[in-house]
Amino acid sequence: MSLALLVQKFGGTSVGDVGRLQHVARRIVEVKEEGNEIVVVVSAIAGETDRLLQLAHQITETPNARELDVILATGEQVAIGLLSLAIQACGSKARSFTGTQVRILTDNVHTRARILNIDVERVRQALREGEIAIVAGFQGVNVEEEVTTLGRGGSDLTAVALAAALDADICEIYTDVEGVYTADPDLVSTARKLPRVAYEEMIEVASLGARVLQARAVEYAKNYNVSIHVRSSFTRNPGTMVVQEDRDMERVAVSGIAYDKNEAKITITGVVDRPGIAAKLFGRVAESGIVVDMIVQNISQDGHTDISFTVPRSDFHKAKELVEGVAREIGANQILGDDRIAKVSIVGVGIRTHSGVAAKMFAALAAEKVNIMMISTSEIKVSCVIEEQYAELAVRVLHDTFQLGDPPAEER
Amino acid sequence: MSLALLVQKFGGTSVGDVGRLQHVARRIVEVKEEGNEIVVVVSAIAGETDRLLQLAHQITETPNARELDVILATGEQVAIGLLSLAIQACGSKARSFTGTQVRILTDNVHTRARILNIDVERVRQALREGEIAIVAGFQGVNVEEEVTTLGRGGSDLTAVALAAALDADICEIYTDVEGVYTADPDLVSTARKLPRVAYEEMIEVASLGARVLQARAVEYAKNYNVSIHVRSSFTRNPGTMVVQEDRDMERVAVSGIAYDKNEAKITITGVVDRPGIAAKLFGRVAESGIVVDMIVQNISQDGHTDISFTVPRSDFHKAKELVEGVAREIGANQILGDDRIAKVSIVGVGIRTHSGVAAKMFAALAAEKVNIMMISTSEIKVSCVIEEQYAELAVRVLHDTFQLGDPPAEER
Repeated sequence: MSLALLVQKFGGTSVGDVGRLQHVARRIVEVKEEGNEIVVVVSAIAGETDRLLQLAHQITETPNARELDVILATGEQVAIGLLSLAIQACGSKARSFTGTQVRILTDNVHTRARILNIDVERVRQALREGEIAIVAGFQGVNVEEEVTTLGRGGSDLTAVALAAALDADICEIYTDVEGVYTADPDLVSTARKLPRVAYEEMIEVASLGARVLQARAVEYAKNYNVSIHVRSSFTRNPGTMVVQEDRDMERVAVSGIAYDKNEAKITITGVVDRPGIAAKLFGRVAESGIVVDMIVQNISQDGHTDISFTVPRSDFHKAKELVEGVAREIGANQILGDDRIAKVSIVGVGIRTHSGVAAKMFAALAAEKVNIMMISTSEIKVSCVIEEQYAELAVRVLHDTFQLGDPPAEER
Repeated sequence: MSLALLVQKFGGTSVGDVGRLQHVARRIVEVKEEGNEIVVVVSAIAGETDRLLQLAHQITETPNARELDVILATGEQVAIGLLSLAIQACGSKARSFTGTQVRILTDNVHTRARILNIDVERVRQALREGEIAIVAGFQGVNVEEEVTTLGRGGSDLTAVALAAALDADICEIYTDVEGVYTADPDLVSTARKLPRVAYEEMIEVASLGARVLQARAVEYAKNYNVSIHVRSSFTRNPGTMVVQEDRDMERVAVSGIAYDKNEAKITITGVVDRPGIAAKLFGRVAESGIVVDMIVQNISQDGHTDISFTVPRSDFHKAKELVEGVAREIGANQILGDDRIAKVSIVGVGIRTHSGVAAKMFAALAAEKVNIMMISTSEIKVSCVIEEQYAELAVRVLHDTFQLGDPPAEER
């Protein structure tokens, strides 16, 4: 008689050392002994992926992606083995599965593969035999039996995709914070934990650098209607449920303030305003595997225009070089770069239905003399690029402006 | 036009850090550029297997063998990825293969699996495409797609088995010594490198603790007639060929002196001398996975006998406990244990045809007042268990006694 089928995902800090691993194991076994069926997804032990990456980069600055995946996948493989041992040491049955063993079939795009299909038969078999199934996050296998990885934060995606494939009752994402907050609690003392957020909000928050949950994983959860519970592996407190949007949520305009210091800005001035120029520029950037975030193009003057965009800070120099090459071809005037920027955003499904939210944000920043360098908006968020040094100030001011520290009249 | 198909095996010290790994990569590429086809087998980076074992043992003293294999196999998986990257950085093509990918099919005995079959099709495909194939040593996969490992030194076995399956021209075992010596050169200044040794001698030397080459690998090479070349990864000097015995080899009685300090001795006194007692005792020891090396039983007196045997020192306490249990059942008198022993052996295919070799050994030890606690002989070796503190002395004395420091009249 099973109460529920749970997928529980533990990140690298939750299994940061042997002591934590044993703590996690006890916690899993307790939930299992309440009569639940449990599938655990685990990341590499904290720091291990970086250690492996560093080894590869000591050999070559541009490691072959196939071989890099072979190397990186070992981090999770060690973690599943150790966690299985820790659970067995608690007197429960456990069995580990690599991405190849499960099998989590992906496409061929090494280091950022997409999941095509999950065969859950072996996992179900383990559950039938009363075992806790421990699955390696972050990794898969393609049709040629090559090891692939899903990109940073890919273990979240593994957990959500497994929950969908297994039709699990819930996907619990254990992390080192208590849930999703109105702002980074380290920055804003009045930040509140949100009991619920909508998938759409969570996608924006994740892609904005609040690394609680990988954006692709939330997107996947939304598409397959997987309920996610983001919670702490160190306390028993309920965390934040990530669910389908409902009417109550729209009552509040802004749910939270996010910021991101991992981007850099590139501006191309004096571009001839002709169809196909943007396609050529961003086509070239995309080919090199650099993910562009914000793109802003000003109104054309005298047949010339300026284009600004942001890229991950780690890709800044590569992107700038690339753009300098393209600039000559498209006859641009000048390339400007700035990697001392921050992106500050307000997020909320209520932004759709409340007017004047963006204007209120701009006014609040202006009142503090924070210069806005770029603006980008979507239905449920407004982002501003500002100087990096003002990031913390901006977050605090916006948190106050939208009164996020106050408990809502009716808890959402 | 290929000159030869080589299997080259590099151990953990040969790839001990990034610098050594790059050195090994350059060496491989040079041989490839001479027109040879190359399959490389690589062990985990030095210390990595022990690090992983330690992690597992921090969690539990008796780790589940299946999960231990999942953990241990990652050591070689990292090494194949890094070596592939290092070879690619030299401008050559390389492709890594795990045991699962090759695939190296084994039985189900985790942590000490036996190879059943190797499917070389993917490796051959890589060679056809001009790639250097990099295969993970030490690991395989069973029919249920479980990761298995072959036991300590298993990478040697992987290399030899691959050489046999590929019908390679030679299997080169690269190590941190120049070849096989008449005795440990660190101990005996006059020790000489042997140009050739017979498989049988090498099996004895390996099983006696001269850890140049795993005994099972030599046995496999003998059965499949794979020529092995043991040589240094740090110099270009020719090493030692391990080959079929020929007539020349028998001219010399003793080829080398080996010693082993990794054993412990257990003696059971006053055992009733009745059929089935030894079977019961050693059956029980074998069940627990402990490998017994020497067994000596004295002539029965008054219907009672003493049995002594040696086990790996790491299994000493476990074995002693076990034997104490069995002793009660078989009505033995006393259990004695000693883990401060050493085994010193003379090895040579000539021992078969030369008389008085063993007597000469005993006399040499007696002249130095070294007490012999156990003796065991085979066709091509004589081993004596002595007090540990006399091991080095015994090796030097025996090396002199059999004149191994003198260059032979006709170099073998």
